[in-house]
Amino acid sequence: MTRDRRPHGGTGALLRRRHALLGTGAPLFYERPLHIVRGEGVWLYDAHGERYLDAYNNVPHVGHCHPKVVEAIARQAATLNTHTRYLHAGIVEYGERLVATFDAPLEMVVFACTGSEANDLALQLARFATGHAGFIVTDFSYHGNTTAVRAVSSASTALEPRSSAVRTVPVPDPYRPPAGLAGADLADACVRRVQEAVDALHADGLGVAGILLDTIFSGEGLPQVPAGFVERAVGIVRAAGGLYIADEVQPGFGRMGDHFWGYRAHGVVPDVVTLGKPMGNGHPISAVIARRELLEPFGEARHYFNTFAGNPVSCAAANAVLDVLEEENLVARARETGEYLLEGLAALRERHRLVGDVRGRGLFIGVELVSDRGTREPATAQARNVINAMRERRVLIGETGRHENVLKLRPPLPFAREHADLLLAALDDCLGEAETPA
Amino acid sequence: MTRDRRPHGGTGALLRRRHALLGTGAPLFYERPLHIVRGEGVWLYDAHGERYLDAYNNVPHVGHCHPKVVEAIARQAATLNTHTRYLHAGIVEYGERLVATFDAPLEMVVFACTGSEANDLALQLARFATGHAGFIVTDFSYHGNTTAVRAVSSASTALEPRSSAVRTVPVPDPYRPPAGLAGADLADACVRRVQEAVDALHADGLGVAGILLDTIFSGEGLPQVPAGFVERAVGIVRAAGGLYIADEVQPGFGRMGDHFWGYRAHGVVPDVVTLGKPMGNGHPISAVIARRELLEPFGEARHYFNTFAGNPVSCAAANAVLDVLEEENLVARARETGEYLLEGLAALRERHRLVGDVRGRGLFIGVELVSDRGTREPATAQARNVINAMRERRVLIGETGRHENVLKLRPPLPFAREHADLLLAALDDCLGEAETPA
Repeated sequence: MTRDRRPHGGTGALLRRRHALLGTGAPLFYERPLHIVRGEGVWLYDAHGERYLDAYNNVPHVGHCHPKVVEAIARQAATLNTHTRYLHAGIVEYGERLVATFDAPLEMVVFACTGSEANDLALQLARFATGHAGFIVTDFSYHGNTTAVRAVSSASTALEPRSSAVRTVPVPDPYRPPAGLAGADLADACVRRVQEAVDALHADGLGVAGILLDTIFSGEGLPQVPAGFVERAVGIVRAAGGLYIADEVQPGFGRMGDHFWGYRAHGVVPDVVTLGKPMGNGHPISAVIARRELLEPFGEARHYFNTFAGNPVSCAAANAVLDVLEEENLVARARETGEYLLEGLAALRERHRLVGDVRGRGLFIGVELVSDRGTREPATAQARNVINAMRERRVLIGETGRHENVLKLRPPLPFAREHADLLLAALDDCLGEAETPA
Repeated sequence: MTRDRRPHGGTGALLRRRHALLGTGAPLFYERPLHIVRGEGVWLYDAHGERYLDAYNNVPHVGHCHPKVVEAIARQAATLNTHTRYLHAGIVEYGERLVATFDAPLEMVVFACTGSEANDLALQLARFATGHAGFIVTDFSYHGNTTAVRAVSSASTALEPRSSAVRTVPVPDPYRPPAGLAGADLADACVRRVQEAVDALHADGLGVAGILLDTIFSGEGLPQVPAGFVERAVGIVRAAGGLYIADEVQPGFGRMGDHFWGYRAHGVVPDVVTLGKPMGNGHPISAVIARRELLEPFGEARHYFNTFAGNPVSCAAANAVLDVLEEENLVARARETGEYLLEGLAALRERHRLVGDVRGRGLFIGVELVSDRGTREPATAQARNVINAMRERRVLIGETGRHENVLKLRPPLPFAREHADLLLAALDDCLGEAETPA
């Protein structure tokens, strides 16, 4: 997303102070940055009282400032907020409820505070359990920002020499096959790349600690990965002694509509799962879920402790999120609204040549823009223009993919048909403008 | 601290469920674990309504569940909780206020969620800024639990092969000089070890990215480091092109009583400072403070973004902590109560041969137990017994140091003389019991 260094309008003074304090490199959305002061459900409000439809933010999973989550936080913060070196029922009750949403044999949990911490811990766990150093990741992935997790985030290190212990493999994207791979054997070719990565790690004496996959491949632009690819890739890694770590920080907690966890779309249960962003509706909490025979020895050897992790307030917030998901039937709503939105976007594809592909599941949808449907040339500049034009129409969306040409629609789950209609109408206009030569 | 695997009393069922869910390796305090359900000021309450004096927890810096902090969290959580890709006044106002407590040229900040994340980011910053890989740390330090921070936490990796990029140096502890070093030239000898570590990193082609110091050396048991040692060590590191990173996660925010930041006791301003635990009174927030010429290029190159970091709720919590520190004059109280407590502990040292040394500043105090004052043999088992006996008398303390024989007194800052009196009376009894042969 472009950052803007020229202060605009009423936000100028605040922007200058921010730049002096946080630096001009601190990411900020939009050519004209938004100054947001209030949130409610799927709506955000700026300092002038203008209302924006939030079709981007996945962290406020059950809606901005959901009163049940707010109340849970306020009540527990007033009662007790301490660490896990004392017994507390809240962490046990929430943890048991959380673990019950996973498939056997995933039955234990370690709490952390951020998705980065969860992924970092998963890497430590995999290296400890296997005694190997090497990891395989997809080739435009993002898993977080600690030193170790940055090393396995190929999107972050795309322009840098990558650690020799990290090998990347292409994702079988049928719309935009990796260079040199195409046709009916796309998945086969990508599976062979996994085998080659395994062989190379062995040849270098590193061994295979695991494969780390975002189960919706959000960094790669939400490609429609052929059935069986993940299962075959995982089979190769497991045969080499490595683990399958599923990063559910983005797809998890029912966003997919059909499944509560993204890994279920791929037909193979992970050894380790990492959670984050939506877990506490914005309250910092994350987790690693794993098989008992992995976590018990690791815990006994390392005694991992994270001061803020699993504290009573964060568990109360996370528990309220599960309550609201159930009470408001939000997973089903994600499926229904997502299907409705996909239909509407397919209609826009008929009307706008800029739209090359529409895909996604539930309320995680990608709209890939191309300047030529024949060559599928990425329409990067047009995507940026559409996103900024949507912001001017007070609808918030983002982008993803290595070419930054995939519009990312990923709203809070209370997003309903009426909101989808607003989004579609605005997008129709903005696509039309972007197609008109200046 | 000992962990207990045999369920006791009313906590048995909860403990069994916790073990099944989190593992037996998840750290738990005391031979008879505490089931805490409520906190207020310097008091914690268990499930039976019994009250415990908290002389251990530094995270609830301005007191458990301080109403001003709770109100700030509740109000902001109900208004807006989002990320820093939109403008928000809260982060700018808090950040400016925070940065103003540091010495020039420390004037910029990056927010994160935990002390581990802050230290991990500081390591990334130092490696980026210097182009070097090597770090020097003291030899029983703890800085956090990410892969990279664990590698520089010598207490965590004491039993493992350590990364060749991390070199440890002894702390000049006058009470317990490092093996082979003693006498009037203790600081000189330790300074020479820093030079040797620098030379070794250069010889190995790693170079020196920095020295990372907990400014109160809490892992090493709060030794009374001779004046000038840190300044000389930092001078050597800087001459080699490295940075001085001060870890203020434990000593910061006025706990020392005399200084708001621990580094001020050592006469040299760091290049980078990391903050954590007490910052939000338990709400997960942390930060890296640095010089502009370090952070600007790093930000421009890396665009570091942390989803939960610096969100409006965490900044509101952290801002309320600064408010309470000022309104209740808690830094001065830390100094006064700390002095009173040190006097009382000195008197206990006269009465109990088990007490070898009493030291500390403000409300961060160590009481080193020895089984023989002549040989200074660490009284590890007795320290454990005293801590558990104190828990039975409903006073919570901990331990530190490589021999686990230093009682750690580190209460919330509202700890007053009346609380110090309760602590001293209980400790007097427990030391007496520990000295009586069974």
